[in-house]
Amino acid sequence: MLMFSKEIYIQRRLRLREQVQSGLILLLGNHEAPMNYVANTYHFRQDSSFLYFLGLDEPGLAAVIDLDAGGETLFGTDATVDDVVWMGVQPTLRAKADSAGIAAVSPYATLAGTLRAAVEKGRTVHFLPPYRSYNKILLHEWLGIPPAAQKEQASPALIRAVVALRIKKELCEIAEIEKACAVGYRMHLAAMAQCRAGAKESDIAGAIEGIAIAGGAVSFPVILSQNGETLHNHDHSQTLTDGRLLVIDAGAETRLHYASDYTRTLPAGGRFTARQKEIYNIVLEANNHAVCTAKPGITYRSVHLEAAKIITCGLQALGLMTGDADESVAAGAHALFFPHGLGHQMGLDVHDMEDMGENYVGYDDETQRAEQFGLGSLRMGRRLQEGFCITVEPGIYFIPALIAQWKSDGKLSRFINYPKAEEYIGFGGVRLEDDILITADGCRLLGERRIPITTDDVEAAING
Amino acid sequence: MLMFSKEIYIQRRLRLREQVQSGLILLLGNHEAPMNYVANTYHFRQDSSFLYFLGLDEPGLAAVIDLDAGGETLFGTDATVDDVVWMGVQPTLRAKADSAGIAAVSPYATLAGTLRAAVEKGRTVHFLPPYRSYNKILLHEWLGIPPAAQKEQASPALIRAVVALRIKKELCEIAEIEKACAVGYRMHLAAMAQCRAGAKESDIAGAIEGIAIAGGAVSFPVILSQNGETLHNHDHSQTLTDGRLLVIDAGAETRLHYASDYTRTLPAGGRFTARQKEIYNIVLEANNHAVCTAKPGITYRSVHLEAAKIITCGLQALGLMTGDADESVAAGAHALFFPHGLGHQMGLDVHDMEDMGENYVGYDDETQRAEQFGLGSLRMGRRLQEGFCITVEPGIYFIPALIAQWKSDGKLSRFINYPKAEEYIGFGGVRLEDDILITADGCRLLGERRIPITTDDVEAAING
Repeated sequence: MLMFSKEIYIQRRLRLREQVQSGLILLLGNHEAPMNYVANTYHFRQDSSFLYFLGLDEPGLAAVIDLDAGGETLFGTDATVDDVVWMGVQPTLRAKADSAGIAAVSPYATLAGTLRAAVEKGRTVHFLPPYRSYNKILLHEWLGIPPAAQKEQASPALIRAVVALRIKKELCEIAEIEKACAVGYRMHLAAMAQCRAGAKESDIAGAIEGIAIAGGAVSFPVILSQNGETLHNHDHSQTLTDGRLLVIDAGAETRLHYASDYTRTLPAGGRFTARQKEIYNIVLEANNHAVCTAKPGITYRSVHLEAAKIITCGLQALGLMTGDADESVAAGAHALFFPHGLGHQMGLDVHDMEDMGENYVGYDDETQRAEQFGLGSLRMGRRLQEGFCITVEPGIYFIPALIAQWKSDGKLSRFINYPKAEEYIGFGGVRLEDDILITADGCRLLGERRIPITTDDVEAAING
Repeated sequence: MLMFSKEIYIQRRLRLREQVQSGLILLLGNHEAPMNYVANTYHFRQDSSFLYFLGLDEPGLAAVIDLDAGGETLFGTDATVDDVVWMGVQPTLRAKADSAGIAAVSPYATLAGTLRAAVEKGRTVHFLPPYRSYNKILLHEWLGIPPAAQKEQASPALIRAVVALRIKKELCEIAEIEKACAVGYRMHLAAMAQCRAGAKESDIAGAIEGIAIAGGAVSFPVILSQNGETLHNHDHSQTLTDGRLLVIDAGAETRLHYASDYTRTLPAGGRFTARQKEIYNIVLEANNHAVCTAKPGITYRSVHLEAAKIITCGLQALGLMTGDADESVAAGAHALFFPHGLGHQMGLDVHDMEDMGENYVGYDDETQRAEQFGLGSLRMGRRLQEGFCITVEPGIYFIPALIAQWKSDGKLSRFINYPKAEEYIGFGGVRLEDDILITADGCRLLGERRIPITTDDVEAAING
């Protein structure tokens, strides 16, 4: 079993118990997920909070922490000889519990009774919002809560406690994230080495997914397309063409399931055009400025808005935008070209803890989520603290459907030169993403070496 | 949209309607499947029967065929501008329906009402056994059938009709399977090229998964291990060691989702030992004999039993087994070393239609599944017909837990030399798998070229 030392998990659960008052905490592990029939499963991905508090990376497990009586029980099923023939020798449930520092074990089939008995006594069963349908069916059976009502009946106390712990990364976690960054580096360098007119997007995507899988897994399905104006483009059906831009947003997950998340934008034919460099360097400036600015005590929303201002000023210099830059940013005019947020928490999930609800993770009582288009997509607005691992990922895109809609609505036309914007249709998009750690007095880039990011360095990496 | 011509899907649905009498047929497509939070999904895999009858490879679709009124309706949801920003331009629901030759479209949200209205009128809603939990929740909501009861309430008439159609491959399907075989060939040749003492199992697994992903996807998670005695071993944590055997069971899925499935067993250090060759050549003989024997009109169970006899005779010659070979096979003694079946149907699923229930696919009124250990694991026993695509995958394994259990039970000891079997603990396993098409008067190997399979050819492929 691949995990941190037992003491780390024991400590984490102790701290969790301090923050949730009474009742039972149910930590529900994931089950195998079928692709096209029950036995043909996707690669197993354990629930991240289950990993955080127990470290056990096998399907079909659950843990119950009794906050009043103090006991902890691991529920699961031991392998039969038939399982061993097909799947190999497995550690016993007892051995798994020992490795996580849990005293009691019980067959998985007894979990329903444990939970129902607690509910009958009027005790609270704290659970996190389920995102796997299999677990929703189980919670329905066990607690009588229909799937559609489970998210709102999840425990805010448990969510807050888990977020408070997981959001600040421990040193062992940062070391693991650095490993994910190292694999991410190799993925992007491999993509650069294969980038040339005539290459197939699908071959590059396959090659870099293969590198991630060799080191663990991808942290999310690779985004790789010359239609980079589509923010999450998983269509890799095109052939690289000189003069186009290739956006690659791809990261790795280590065997302990910590993530990296990087985006680079490459000239498909090996050399950037002058017009591409103009847009690219605005995005690069926004990225560098954010890395320079992020530090404990300021909100990430303010860093996002500074990046938006850099993008606005840059686009004004090219004649794509106009008017007072601060007013333009306040009105959200840049969101036509930069419609997403500057970044998000990263850890055991590439969007860390997104299953709990972005507003619990990226916002708090002090910093509330905006409703404005663009700023509303900022996943993380709250005040930065030492130990946060976050992404920095500004971008500029020319999205035909969005330009057409805004233009026809006459939206914010005092800040936008629509005829000029239309000239850029077909340009695609540029996104440049790095991963940072908030330190005591600023931040630092994660990863031993920065993936080539200046236009010169990118061209050198492509052309050898 | 990547699919066969519209007429193919129209014809298939016509033939389906001829075989199911009355009521509604619900063909339920798959939805995105979350890995660790809702937005981080596994690569999308459409339901295979949905692909077969509609060809539409997007999530969130369903079709209803009204057998009495004759109408066909595609249910789905059109993309919003926000969807376009994040996921790109999508074909409309109307365009999807047109491409599949379906006349009517309706919002997905109206499907519940359509089904409930039919149930209230006492009409039968035919559905296939669901295997995705998301779809189980939907069926529960729509039809009031709890998830645990859905499999038994699935429509036998619909299952039989779908199996009858899908089991005999059309020419366009065979051409697509050949493409999957070509990718499988490249996967295994790449593995051979990387096979050397000191290489990591995980690097080879990643590289060959990458090749599959570039061409579509893997047809199942790669099985690759020096602990080849574990039949489905997804642990790739070891380093290749001279003297050990590496079992690689891996296949590809094309963009149209047709599968290949191949197994080769490599000498981890580049050269087979004499003892390895002895076992290997028994398995190779069983494979070749099955390919030579399979033809329309005979049962695959009989081919399996002939392979079992070759394995029995081979192991007797090595002193591992003893006694009358026919009696030994009838008693199932070989299953200690060959505990699985000779093969299975292959098509849109690598175990084709396994979601419908293996006994509907691999067995029929004439050929019933055995209960004996080993033979009971034969997925496909029925009489062969022209157009079947099946795997041929004999194997010999030395499974410590199984040898220990049988020995301690004194099981079939008149046929097994247990002390000799124990000498082979640590040997691992050998499996050799090819894909065949049953033709009018025999069968042929699928794939343009056979993946190297003789010990000489394998060593040549490894050592260049």
